[in-house]
Amino acid sequence: MTKLDEISIIRIFQNELRSKKFVSEDVEIFNFGKTKIAAKTDTLVESTDIPPKMKLFDAARKSIVACVSDFAAKGIKPQYGIVSVNLPKSISRSKINEIALGFRKACDEYDISILGGDTNEGKEIVFNVCIFGETDKIVKRKGSKKNDLIFATGPFGYTSAGLNILLNKKKVDGRFAKKVIKSVINPKPQLKFGLKNKKYFSSSMDSSDGLSTTLNEMSNQSKKKFVINNRPCMRDLEDYAKSQKLNLNDLIFHGGEEYEFVFTTLPKHRKIIQKNAKILKIPIIEIGYVTLGKGVYVKDGNSFFSLKDLGWKHFR
Amino acid sequence: MTKLDEISIIRIFQNELRSKKFVSEDVEIFNFGKTKIAAKTDTLVESTDIPPKMKLFDAARKSIVACVSDFAAKGIKPQYGIVSVNLPKSISRSKINEIALGFRKACDEYDISILGGDTNEGKEIVFNVCIFGETDKIVKRKGSKKNDLIFATGPFGYTSAGLNILLNKKKVDGRFAKKVIKSVINPKPQLKFGLKNKKYFSSSMDSSDGLSTTLNEMSNQSKKKFVINNRPCMRDLEDYAKSQKLNLNDLIFHGGEEYEFVFTTLPKHRKIIQKNAKILKIPIIEIGYVTLGKGVYVKDGNSFFSLKDLGWKHFR
Repeated sequence: MTKLDEISIIRIFQNELRSKKFVSEDVEIFNFGKTKIAAKTDTLVESTDIPPKMKLFDAARKSIVACVSDFAAKGIKPQYGIVSVNLPKSISRSKINEIALGFRKACDEYDISILGGDTNEGKEIVFNVCIFGETDKIVKRKGSKKNDLIFATGPFGYTSAGLNILLNKKKVDGRFAKKVIKSVINPKPQLKFGLKNKKYFSSSMDSSDGLSTTLNEMSNQSKKKFVINNRPCMRDLEDYAKSQKLNLNDLIFHGGEEYEFVFTTLPKHRKIIQKNAKILKIPIIEIGYVTLGKGVYVKDGNSFFSLKDLGWKHFR
Repeated sequence: MTKLDEISIIRIFQNELRSKKFVSEDVEIFNFGKTKIAAKTDTLVESTDIPPKMKLFDAARKSIVACVSDFAAKGIKPQYGIVSVNLPKSISRSKINEIALGFRKACDEYDISILGGDTNEGKEIVFNVCIFGETDKIVKRKGSKKNDLIFATGPFGYTSAGLNILLNKKKVDGRFAKKVIKSVINPKPQLKFGLKNKKYFSSSMDSSDGLSTTLNEMSNQSKKKFVINNRPCMRDLEDYAKSQKLNLNDLIFHGGEEYEFVFTTLPKHRKIIQKNAKILKIPIIEIGYVTLGKGVYVKDGNSFFSLKDLGWKHFR
């Protein structure tokens, strides 16, 4: 029995279920007459996606927010959601209440109406969420041009540091620990920013599987070289990596779960995008530029290294 | 810790997530402009929904077919689907192939395009399916009038007999055993019949949670009495129930998993509906009529008994 990674598994399904021309996107698009609908489904599984100390309230909220993140990247307003829940037989009323309140919180934050769903008995807790919105043109993962600027909607690496603390049950106190744990427990995709600025994006992609995955996918699909000359990371993360002897680039590029997104844009849109970000108080970061060639290269000190896709894959 | 049944759990979610005016339906409806979309989600969980001897191919097919059944009841054509799959880490390539082929089979049978989905690692196999279609008016669970006729799209009770054999690992051979096991493994919702005859339905509902659940729900929502004077059951089931000392009414009314549906209609439509059924070779059965009052009453010999809702509930 060979162990398969997620990409091999997805390929098996794609070969059976879809045309060879299939290109991965953040959201699925389907048409009813002239109406174009975007849908995104995401599953949160207790044994793999809920770290120690994360409450069911936060897990339920996050299962919806994870889908919102893809809508934010594409600048699509989510309107409706369907929620399916698997629960173990012995679950208590108070835990179910907590889960319901978590879903409610996400729906209030992002103005989503839950249409319904389905409850099932299972060995472990599973939340499956599907959200829907109407859209016109889709900003794709592909589409960046030579000289485009590359932006991230926020800093990276905090979630890796937070997961490192939670999964290893490290005893770390202080403001930094609180901040990075909160980044894992309470992600906030920049939906308003995506909605407002979509028209300036030449390409965009959610980054929750890891920044190295996102940048490589965008570079591959556009058949362009991505040069990252400004890593989206804050000073406190650098200090923490040093003090804990963690590899800073691993934290920034290969962790995932940030629920930020990456977009490319023409240099002439830099000003208006930065202005819009300021109004919304979103700390967007210009991280690099697009050029001819292929691959992703990151400036580290005075040299560049080739960034491989080492983001999160299930079954690995 | 109190044990909760599915209805209590659903109520907790409804109280948090929806308006009090919420009425249960087979499909969720949402509007984008003038486009009305129907969606149905269903989850198949290895530990509770896959009986011994059922292949993953059939389980995957059934997870889509279960959603199609609700579309059949409402006479809506499913067009698109999204599939989410949780798989244990150790699953083999050949099993994944089998799953993909099962999804493919259902999509070919009912002409559904899979848009995409999501794969996850989990402790047990879970298939979550969401299908979509466009619709105009919705036939509701509510809406039957005095003197309407009540029909079922096929015989009931075979799946209970089949599950009884599979779950108790009974050694039963012969044509009857094969037939009832097939009814569990390979359900075939009457989509074409629903699409063709929807316009004659005053109310309708999928019956996969059990005929007693369906009849009680339809009677409650319409605030009418449902009189069942012709139980939808075949002679071979009666014989089997006698020989195995099983309660025939339990098999017919409380089993579930038939993936047939129940509809009500004006007496004047009887002929055309029966003609349409004959053309499609669907063995529809006129099972009773609607009258003033409340509750569901079943004729058994020369007397009537009140039929309670004892269909399938999770967490019970």
